Amino acid sequence: MRATHARTGLVDRSCDVAVVGAGTAGLAAERAARKAGAKTLLIDDAFAGTTCANVGCMPSKLLIAAANAAFDARRVPIFGIQTQISVDDRAVMARIRKERDGFVSATLKSIENLPAEVCIRQRAHFVGETRLALGDGSAVTAKAIVIATGSRPSIPTPFAGLGDILLTNETIFELPALPRSIAVIGAGPLGLELAQALARLGVDIKVFDEGERLAALHDAEVAKELRSVLGREFPMHLSVKVETEKQGGQARLSWSGDSSGEATFERVLVAAGRPPALHALDVKATGLRTNEHGVPKFDPATLQCGDAPIFLAGDVDGQRAVLHEAYAEGTIAGRNAALFPNVEKAKRSVSLAIMFTDPPLATIGVSPSDVMVVGSSSYVDQGRARVEGRNAGLIRIYADRDGGVIKGACLFGPGMDHIAHLFAWAIERRETAAALLQLPFYHPTFEEGLKTALREMCEAAGSAELKNMDSEAAPGA
Amino acid sequence: MRATHARTGLVDRSCDVAVVGAGTAGLAAERAARKAGAKTLLIDDAFAGTTCANVGCMPSKLLIAAANAAFDARRVPIFGIQTQISVDDRAVMARIRKERDGFVSATLKSIENLPAEVCIRQRAHFVGETRLALGDGSAVTAKAIVIATGSRPSIPTPFAGLGDILLTNETIFELPALPRSIAVIGAGPLGLELAQALARLGVDIKVFDEGERLAALHDAEVAKELRSVLGREFPMHLSVKVETEKQGGQARLSWSGDSSGEATFERVLVAAGRPPALHALDVKATGLRTNEHGVPKFDPATLQCGDAPIFLAGDVDGQRAVLHEAYAEGTIAGRNAALFPNVEKAKRSVSLAIMFTDPPLATIGVSPSDVMVVGSSSYVDQGRARVEGRNAGLIRIYADRDGGVIKGACLFGPGMDHIAHLFAWAIERRETAAALLQLPFYHPTFEEGLKTALREMCEAAGSAELKNMDSEAAPGA
Repeated sequence: MRATHARTGLVDRSCDVAVVGAGTAGLAAERAARKAGAKTLLIDDAFAGTTCANVGCMPSKLLIAAANAAFDARRVPIFGIQTQISVDDRAVMARIRKERDGFVSATLKSIENLPAEVCIRQRAHFVGETRLALGDGSAVTAKAIVIATGSRPSIPTPFAGLGDILLTNETIFELPALPRSIAVIGAGPLGLELAQALARLGVDIKVFDEGERLAALHDAEVAKELRSVLGREFPMHLSVKVETEKQGGQARLSWSGDSSGEATFERVLVAAGRPPALHALDVKATGLRTNEHGVPKFDPATLQCGDAPIFLAGDVDGQRAVLHEAYAEGTIAGRNAALFPNVEKAKRSVSLAIMFTDPPLATIGVSPSDVMVVGSSSYVDQGRARVEGRNAGLIRIYADRDGGVIKGACLFGPGMDHIAHLFAWAIERRETAAALLQLPFYHPTFEEGLKTALREMCEAAGSAELKNMDSEAAPGA
Repeated sequence: MRATHARTGLVDRSCDVAVVGAGTAGLAAERAARKAGAKTLLIDDAFAGTTCANVGCMPSKLLIAAANAAFDARRVPIFGIQTQISVDDRAVMARIRKERDGFVSATLKSIENLPAEVCIRQRAHFVGETRLALGDGSAVTAKAIVIATGSRPSIPTPFAGLGDILLTNETIFELPALPRSIAVIGAGPLGLELAQALARLGVDIKVFDEGERLAALHDAEVAKELRSVLGREFPMHLSVKVETEKQGGQARLSWSGDSSGEATFERVLVAAGRPPALHALDVKATGLRTNEHGVPKFDPATLQCGDAPIFLAGDVDGQRAVLHEAYAEGTIAGRNAALFPNVEKAKRSVSLAIMFTDPPLATIGVSPSDVMVVGSSSYVDQGRARVEGRNAGLIRIYADRDGGVIKGACLFGPGMDHIAHLFAWAIERRETAAALLQLPFYHPTFEEGLKTALREMCEAAGSAELKNMDSEAAPGA
C-alpha cells in the first residue's frame, strides 16, 4: 500500500477512505468509515481540536455564562435584594480559557487514541478525483475521500486592513482583558450572542450589518420582538454600509444607510459569516461541479458529490453549521465513503438552530409562509416568565393548513433553548397542535405558554379534535 | 326549580350539576358541565381563589425566584465577577405578595365573569346522594354533584399546640419579614422547595421527617444524589421522631432516631402533606364506600364514585395533587356529571411531577423496578452543566425490557423542569431509547446529557436499531 519516492525518501500511501480535516465532522467520518470496515487515513495540518471546542460553541457559551451571571446579579433588586457587582474581566477571560482548554484536551485525547498510522499531519490538496498531494510532497490515493475542512471567518474588505484591532471568533477568546469598546460587524447569531455577552460584561457595543435581517430570521414578527428586546442592551444598525480606518490604534467607523453616524472603537469583531474552507484544497482538480461559492454540488441524503467517490461533511458544505449536524454528516459521509459505490440515503433530521442570547432564540424546521397556519404566543405577560422577571419574547409556530401537521417554529423567549427540542421532536413525529394539547404541560412553566399558540392554531384550522379538552386556560393557573 | 322555606324565606335550589369547591378543579368542572349543556351551581364558602394562586405554585415559585436570584448572585465569583449582596427580606416578601395578588385577582375576575346565579357563597354538606344542605339552612338538589373541595395542610399532633409559631404553606407567604430560623417538618417536595429557598434567603433551616424517603422518591440512587446536593445547603434529619415545646416565644425541638439532637427555632413550618379536605362535607350521608383516608372510591378514568351521581376532581381525591391534573380532572368530572349516567372514560396523561428545587427534580411515569431496563447519566461532569457551573445531578430512565418502550424517568439536574416535558411526551408516544437517539439534540445543552442514559439503555437491551448512528459521543463536542 506504500510507494517510496526515490529521491526524497517520502512514502506515498493508499487507503480505502481518506478524510481531510480532523474537526467534529472529520473525526466522525473517520470513525464511521473504520467501523464500516475501511482502512482509513485522517489528514489535518494541525490536529488542534474542533471549531466547537476551540473557538465556537464552548468558549462562546462560557463567555455567555459569565455575562448572564453578571446581568442576573445586577437585576436582583427586582426580587428585593441589594447588590453591588464588579466584573474582573481578566478573571472572566481566564475562566473561559481554562474551561475551554478542558474541553479541547478531551478532543485531543480522543485523537491520541486513534489507531496508529491513521493520522497524517500535513496539508493536502486534490490532484485528481481520488488522489491528494500532501505538503511534504508525498501523496495519498484513496478509494473514496471525505472533505471535512470546516469553515473560516469571512473578513469583508474594509476590515481586512485593521491588523490587530480586528477580532474574530477565532481570536476574541484569547484576549487577556476586555476592551472598553467593540464594533460588532454582523447581526447573525454569532454576532448577537457575542454582542450581548460583551455588553453585559461592560463593553460598549454597537452592532452593524449590511443587511436588514436579524439573526438570519425569516419570521418578521419574531425579528421585530428580538430587535426590541436586544435593543434595550446595545444599539443595532441594520441596512448600513460601514467604512473604517485606523486612527491612533483604534478603528474609526462611519456608517450610512438606514441610519448614519461615526464612532471610534478599541476593537472590531467581525462576525460576518464563516464560509467553507476550501481554498487550499484545489477542488477543481477533482472535476466536480461546484456552486457559486465554490462548494461541490452534493446530495444531502448521502453527502456524495455527484457520482464521484467524494463526500462532504460538516461546515464545509455551507449548510447547517452546527455541531450535531457536523457529527451526523461525518457519520453519514464516512460510512458512505466506505460503502462506495453502494452509498445509502440517510434520513436527515429536522433543522434546529439555537442562538444562546437571553432570552434564547430557536428556529426549527421550515420558515413561515402564507400557506401555513400560524399560532403565536407572547411571553410579555406569561405566568412563570413574570415570576422569574423574564417576561419578554414571542413564539410563532407553523403548520400545514391541510391536516395541521406542525412544520416549523420560531421561538424567542425564556427557556426556548429547551423548548426547541420539544418542537424538533414533535415535527419529526408529525404532531399536530391538537395532538400536542392533549400532552401534559406542567404548571407553572414556560412550556405552558405554548398552549396559547397551539390553541390559536387549532382555531385557525377549525380543528374539531379539541372538543371539551383544554380549549381554554386552566382557571386560577 | 326553587322552593321557598316558609319560615325563613330561604330558597331551595335544584340544578343538573352542583360543584362544591371553587378552586382550579371546581371552576373547571363547572365550566365543563355548563359547556356540556347542564344547569350548574358552584358552591364555595369563600370564593377566595385557588390553592395554586393563593398559597401554592405561584407564591412558592415567587419565593424560589428570589432565593435563586440571591444564590446565583452570591456564586458569580466562579465566573470572575466580584459581588456583595444583601437580602432585604421585607422587600422580598412584599414582591411575592404583590405578584401573587396579581395572579389571584385574575382568578377572581374569572369568577366574577361566571353567569349570574351560578355562584352560591355558602358552606355545604351532603344530606343525601344528590342533596346538599347549605350553611344558611337552605338546600341544593342536583342530578349530579362534583366534589372539588381540595386539600388542607396536615398538622401532626406535636405541632398543633405551637400557636403562632406554627407556619404552613397557607400562612408563610403572609410573613412581613423572614425569621432567623425555621424548622421544616416534612421532606416532601413542598418542604424541600421551601427549605432550600428560605436557606438561600439567609434563614437558618433544618429539615425533619419521620420517614426515610426524600421528596417522595422511589428511586434510591437519585434520592442519594438529591440528599447529597441539597445537603450542602441545609441539614436534613430523616427517620427521626420529633418532639416540640414552646419556650420563650420560640419552639424547642428535640429529635431522635437515625440522628438525634435538639435546637430552638423562631418558627416551625409544617409541610407534612395536604390530605383531602372532606371533613365538613359529611360524605357518609351519600352512602359511598370510602378508602382508609375517608375518600370515596372512584374510577380515575371517569372520576365517578362507584355508580353514584357523584364525582371527585382535584386534590380532594388524594392523587396527583398538581395543577394540570386538577384542571384535567375538573374538566372530566364536570363533563361526566353533565352526561350522567352516560359517563365517558377519559384518557389520563402520564403522571408528571416537578419539584422546583435547584437543580430541579422531575418524576414521570412509573417507578423503577427490577424488571425494567435502566439508563442513567450523571450531570457532575456534563458539558453545558460545567459551562454554567451547575454540574450536579443524576438522571435515571426506565424502559420495558421487552421492546424497550420508555415507561418512566426520575430526573434530578439542571434544566430537568424542561426536560421532564420531553419525557412525558415521549412516554405518551411510546418512544424507545433507540428511537429517541435518532432525534436531534442540540449542542451544547443539558439535553445532550440524556444521550448517555439512552445509549446505556440500548446496550442493556441489546438494541440492534442503533447500527452506526450515534452510538458514541460526538468528537470534540
